[in-house]
Amino acid sequence: MDMDMDIGMEMEIEVLRGGICAVSGVRAYGIRENSRGLALIEGKGKAVGMFTRNKMKAAPLIFTQRLLLENGRISAIIANSGCANSFTGEEGMRNANRMAELASAVLGVDKSEVAVASTGPIGKQLDIAVIERQVQEVAKRLTSDPEGSAAAAKAIMTTDTFPKELAIKVGEVIIGGIAKGSGMIYPHLATATMLAFIYTDADLDRETMQTCLKDACDNSFNMIVVDGDMSTNDMVLLVSRGGKEISAENFKKGLNYLCKELAKMIARDGEGATKFIEVNVSLRGAPVPQGDAKLIAREILRSPLVKSAIFGERIDLACGRIIAAIGSCTSTSTSTSTVPEVEVISMKFRGKEQEAEVVRNGKIVGRWNHEVMKGKELTIDIVLGGGEGESEGEEETTANATATAWGCDLSCDYVMLNASML
Amino acid sequence: MDMDMDIGMEMEIEVLRGGICAVSGVRAYGIRENSRGLALIEGKGKAVGMFTRNKMKAAPLIFTQRLLLENGRISAIIANSGCANSFTGEEGMRNANRMAELASAVLGVDKSEVAVASTGPIGKQLDIAVIERQVQEVAKRLTSDPEGSAAAAKAIMTTDTFPKELAIKVGEVIIGGIAKGSGMIYPHLATATMLAFIYTDADLDRETMQTCLKDACDNSFNMIVVDGDMSTNDMVLLVSRGGKEISAENFKKGLNYLCKELAKMIARDGEGATKFIEVNVSLRGAPVPQGDAKLIAREILRSPLVKSAIFGERIDLACGRIIAAIGSCTSTSTSTSTVPEVEVISMKFRGKEQEAEVVRNGKIVGRWNHEVMKGKELTIDIVLGGGEGESEGEEETTANATATAWGCDLSCDYVMLNASML
Repeated sequence: MDMDMDIGMEMEIEVLRGGICAVSGVRAYGIRENSRGLALIEGKGKAVGMFTRNKMKAAPLIFTQRLLLENGRISAIIANSGCANSFTGEEGMRNANRMAELASAVLGVDKSEVAVASTGPIGKQLDIAVIERQVQEVAKRLTSDPEGSAAAAKAIMTTDTFPKELAIKVGEVIIGGIAKGSGMIYPHLATATMLAFIYTDADLDRETMQTCLKDACDNSFNMIVVDGDMSTNDMVLLVSRGGKEISAENFKKGLNYLCKELAKMIARDGEGATKFIEVNVSLRGAPVPQGDAKLIAREILRSPLVKSAIFGERIDLACGRIIAAIGSCTSTSTSTSTVPEVEVISMKFRGKEQEAEVVRNGKIVGRWNHEVMKGKELTIDIVLGGGEGESEGEEETTANATATAWGCDLSCDYVMLNASML
Repeated sequence: MDMDMDIGMEMEIEVLRGGICAVSGVRAYGIRENSRGLALIEGKGKAVGMFTRNKMKAAPLIFTQRLLLENGRISAIIANSGCANSFTGEEGMRNANRMAELASAVLGVDKSEVAVASTGPIGKQLDIAVIERQVQEVAKRLTSDPEGSAAAAKAIMTTDTFPKELAIKVGEVIIGGIAKGSGMIYPHLATATMLAFIYTDADLDRETMQTCLKDACDNSFNMIVVDGDMSTNDMVLLVSRGGKEISAENFKKGLNYLCKELAKMIARDGEGATKFIEVNVSLRGAPVPQGDAKLIAREILRSPLVKSAIFGERIDLACGRIIAAIGSCTSTSTSTSTVPEVEVISMKFRGKEQEAEVVRNGKIVGRWNHEVMKGKELTIDIVLGGGEGESEGEEETTANATATAWGCDLSCDYVMLNASML
């Protein structure tokens, strides 16, 4: 069920240095002053995006979504941290527009090709004066060196504890990205936002780009759960500068790999997290939509009970609560009937060096090896449905749906951070 | 928006002592030994029930659901705490059956009229020997005195910190109930279960009883959120012994009142809770289904971010996160289009003595009075939609949908309890 390994073996994926700056012609930089950061990325190309499904969309999302609809090209991205510019009304829209003007002026690009993103507390207005000052300095230091990407990745951090960037080579094509998430805890109003900006030199039409980006997001950023809350500011942009040939299929695989790795970095950096958790769900024995497997995997990682049991390193508690979480989400799934006999569960916990089989074909075998839980990484494999004793080593067929989600445990530090007590 | 007060003024509701034993002819008792409790209730009548929607139904639920389908009458309820008898396969079904046999034997009632309920850890088998011993002692001490109800309420507690019972008189009719919830943290596998057993002397047909019980549950037990996890064992039973006349409408009001008060007791006793929270959501300006208001109220109380902000007594953090939660759940609602302009929010926080208006008609007015948050009780009033400045003092019309949900904050103690660290 290690999808990454499968992909890795099927095609050449080489990891490069430099994040977004690994893509030729992309320059970036960013700075921070206390909680306020500003990142600027220059690099012309066809662009597509994915945006939060939250109805309370922040001003920069409305602005950038419109830009992509009307124009379809991006020459620059300006992104600030320290204020989400969300729930800010008309003044918020004017400020998002002003950010684009500022980037347009310092970079000499068309304003209609400047994307805007923000992350930080909800419900307060941007301090445009700060951004006016910061944008000058950042523009001066724009660089295509790897440090440019790193500085931009740092500038968009909020409660992130480390910057997130990655570049890969798939065939001749390079894909590079930076991301941030999933932080909250701000002195004032706050939200959790994830941002990702991805550049590539692949030569693709926008329709293919959009299809690939949606698919990649569905299997990566949409499969990470820190607390189940949905931000008003989530945004993923993909800009293709063109020049290199690649099949849509290979590009998709590469983009999936990149997005998954960035998503895992975000899950690993979840607020207060002490453990990184991967949940693999496999529905067997009947043709089922992948949606159900995804729903189950995410619901398990959303459960505060499951998460606190893992924080407490209690394999027995975690097992029982996972069973309840599975039953809980299959009951509300709109496609309930397609989930194969959920009672026939098999469940295994894997640490770096140990593993413990806790449920086999619907019966608790109770290998309560708490040692498995002690590492910083935990994988939980769940198989639903399927015949007697066949859940191990069975060939997967196209009739089976699998999904992987990533998340973290729920610790006291999460509560203290978000209660603004730390 | 204080629905209880409205109901109280419209009709005479008198609170009585005695819980279920306030209903004539009902005898009860219960005992506890360490974590294992057993309650027995005797009282013949027509019966209906509501059961968890979790697909992983525990054996006693399958048993009791079948009984209600086949028989429709209950002569006794036997309920144990300390083991959920959930995810226990055929042995679990035999044990649920055995519990009914034991109650049938000691009380001399027909086995086909004995309901069975369980609460406690998932995934381990019942210790029937303990129940065999306990049932003898409990049967000897069955009483129609108020202590009988109190002892039964105590016996079904798990991590509850106080027993929950209430009896009321509506006109000539008496309705009495006991409940437990929402506890987990068990030495082994664990789950959160809520149980409620309600008796009445109202003379009603089963169809009316079922309609009234569903309506009451939808507005009470289904509107409490402790952690959003759904148990495999939740069960509410209503037994009518008959004898007193009442209109269906008045009975419904009485049952609603009783269930709401029991539900609030459960929310107040949420694991690790330091604050009791009531959320009132009112959708104005368009005909909207109540389902949307309910969804929004519950989603707010499910958000770990909102809950930790309230634990931290930060009104500003809570406000921003509530806005995100509202946007989040309206985006996934199946009836999105019917929610009136969610951006036009008004929001007010009320403590026992103070109140703070934080958002008015979509604009943050930012009266960040943290004092409001300091008490043990917090009410949050939210109005979505509606015209300029009319959200206060406006008459409600039938076109508006309102909902109230109850819950508690998310504290470090919740995490520690459920991590089995306390």
